[in-house]
Amino acid sequence: MEVKDMKKVSCDKERMEDKITTFSKFGATGHGGITRLSLSEAALQARAEFTKRMKSLGADIVTDDMGNMYATFKGLEDLPHIAMGSHCDSVVQGGNYDGILGVMTAMEAAETIARENIPHRHPITVMIWTNEEGARFDPAMMSSGVVTGKFDKEKMLASKDPEGVTFGEALDASGYKGDEKKRINPKDYMALLELHIEQGPVLEAAKKDIGVVEGVVGMVNYEFEFIGQAGHAGTVPQKLRKDALLAASEGILYLHKELDKLDGKLVYTTGRINCSPNVHTIIPDDVKFTLDARHQDPKVVQQVVDIIKNIPSELASCKVSYEELWARKTVSFNKELVNLVEKNANLYGYSNMRMYSGPGHDSQFAADMLPVTMIFVPSIGGHSHCEIEKTPLDNCVKGANVLLQTILDIDKM
Amino acid sequence: MEVKDMKKVSCDKERMEDKITTFSKFGATGHGGITRLSLSEAALQARAEFTKRMKSLGADIVTDDMGNMYATFKGLEDLPHIAMGSHCDSVVQGGNYDGILGVMTAMEAAETIARENIPHRHPITVMIWTNEEGARFDPAMMSSGVVTGKFDKEKMLASKDPEGVTFGEALDASGYKGDEKKRINPKDYMALLELHIEQGPVLEAAKKDIGVVEGVVGMVNYEFEFIGQAGHAGTVPQKLRKDALLAASEGILYLHKELDKLDGKLVYTTGRINCSPNVHTIIPDDVKFTLDARHQDPKVVQQVVDIIKNIPSELASCKVSYEELWARKTVSFNKELVNLVEKNANLYGYSNMRMYSGPGHDSQFAADMLPVTMIFVPSIGGHSHCEIEKTPLDNCVKGANVLLQTILDIDKM
Repeated sequence: MEVKDMKKVSCDKERMEDKITTFSKFGATGHGGITRLSLSEAALQARAEFTKRMKSLGADIVTDDMGNMYATFKGLEDLPHIAMGSHCDSVVQGGNYDGILGVMTAMEAAETIARENIPHRHPITVMIWTNEEGARFDPAMMSSGVVTGKFDKEKMLASKDPEGVTFGEALDASGYKGDEKKRINPKDYMALLELHIEQGPVLEAAKKDIGVVEGVVGMVNYEFEFIGQAGHAGTVPQKLRKDALLAASEGILYLHKELDKLDGKLVYTTGRINCSPNVHTIIPDDVKFTLDARHQDPKVVQQVVDIIKNIPSELASCKVSYEELWARKTVSFNKELVNLVEKNANLYGYSNMRMYSGPGHDSQFAADMLPVTMIFVPSIGGHSHCEIEKTPLDNCVKGANVLLQTILDIDKM
Repeated sequence: MEVKDMKKVSCDKERMEDKITTFSKFGATGHGGITRLSLSEAALQARAEFTKRMKSLGADIVTDDMGNMYATFKGLEDLPHIAMGSHCDSVVQGGNYDGILGVMTAMEAAETIARENIPHRHPITVMIWTNEEGARFDPAMMSSGVVTGKFDKEKMLASKDPEGVTFGEALDASGYKGDEKKRINPKDYMALLELHIEQGPVLEAAKKDIGVVEGVVGMVNYEFEFIGQAGHAGTVPQKLRKDALLAASEGILYLHKELDKLDGKLVYTTGRINCSPNVHTIIPDDVKFTLDARHQDPKVVQQVVDIIKNIPSELASCKVSYEELWARKTVSFNKELVNLVEKNANLYGYSNMRMYSGPGHDSQFAADMLPVTMIFVPSIGGHSHCEIEKTPLDNCVKGANVLLQTILDIDKM
């Protein structure tokens, strides 16, 4: 690979701001955030706005059989597409940046190319993935999972939202169901870039503008269960008790103490606890909690599993058990693309650092079939999946510039 | 007080069994237990059965303004009533003994007196308290609370069930609303006895037939709160975290460690925990749990409060706070009545032990206005407020015999 042209191009700050303001209306909660569940009315409004804007700039729009959208600007030659994009769905009471910023910066990069008539050999495609969050239809990253053969399509179509509507029904009703042949694929596409908010505090704390994402860390997710015996709070002597919440508390502290001994880059979370019967006058007889642990090095992940397997089989006279809910291996992005992102951050003089993504993204699935990488921009306070989620406008523009320049570099490869 | 006649009387085992079988049908869940919420159709069926049986034996039945029922067998003289009874409502998926056994043993004691024409100077009244459990209409012990002036009647009438029906509306519809003048009171009543299942494992473990209840232990109930900061499980480095569930786990272990140093008769329970947002991929930012602690000695209860107040104000970088939800002082039952119960357990040759009640009962309120005591019978496995709640028939009859003999002794006082 050789990149000759080092001339910088720039996205437009006002246009970027207009996009953020406009898309923040679709599903607005009235408290600064959005609820824009996959294929909901709010999500369809966002898709219509995407269509309108991309078409007005001359893009040709198609959708595949999972409702993934592809807005393509023709290239000068008959070559594979260069794709960029993210998702436009959100969690309940989510923010205005997770996912949609990757769509909006891709739109802005494409708009800059179109308005400034920047010549490009390859077709350039702006993408929207359907149902990344899995907040309405389980699981997350549904459509990238189907496109890359990780999920069974029929099972996904049958996934139901809390009202009993299946993903398939919602997709049919949306008008965005297209042709399986239109899916992103390694023959017709040469690369995919996804810009995303960091969703964590590292970039802000390190005072960096751009996260050069090297991959997505491997993870394991376990659920622990503690079985005790229920009894009335006022009657059972302490010595005769089998208190499952006391046992679970000991289990949480045991895991934290042991996991704290591992590599400092390990992140782990005991985030969900369920206590039965959860009544203030009854001794708990069944408590479960989850452990989510992530690290880029599979050896460290294995150390986590070893610690899990060494948890005592009895704590506070309660039976202790655990099961793996799921796991994923570390995904490494394409090294050439990672280098390009780093080069371009430096080209613009943006402070940057290499990092791994903790959260999962559609890109980690897509990385199995074609060259992929991601660009992170800072999240104020590390907040994400909440209404106060925010990335400063300047950082959005910086991210868009790096995205744009990287696309143009790839076009020359 | 002088009790001359030491002749033993006996209740009838077959009649006792028939009562248990019959009342177990009202609200039967089909899994061995009952759901018989206060003033529900099932509870009205139980009241109708009570009325039918008591009337057929010659009792005169009245209700007061809270729907409490009084079935009275005339005495030879115009003297204050001797009352015995309990409640007929249950929790959701409760058992066939909590409350109703106190009604059934009182019915059986009265039936024995009536059928065997045992002379008694005082009127003998079998009682049903309305809404002891508070499972449909909050709070528990509602009607004894109103009768003894602890609860405001208008507020109680306005208490709503989950469907929005007020206690007042349910009471009006039940047909059991009577006259305020009919309430149990210290002028017209000389004593009240309540037989109840222990709801704990102590009698069974000690191999005792009868619990001679000296009172109801004092208790405090606190809620602790731990405020941390939410964040994505995959992004926030461990060192920057404020994990409220980790803090709460440390808090639970701190309290258990400190409270275990106090008197061995102290019982305490961390029974309810609520974690927010309680998602496996999000660091918890707000966790609350309750602490219920009970002991007959107010000094020990004060030691508990001292330990609570000494909890660190910060754990695992999270802010720790607490508030008292409620408290009650130790209630001591009438010593003469307690002695009588003990004497009669010995008279029949039933193994017995003195003990305090951990759970609250209507009797603890009534004890403020007239001489009251309680008789406990064993709960198999200590189970209560669940469908497998069980007291062996022999123990039910033994309890009824002690109750009967004690009523007859009081009649001679």
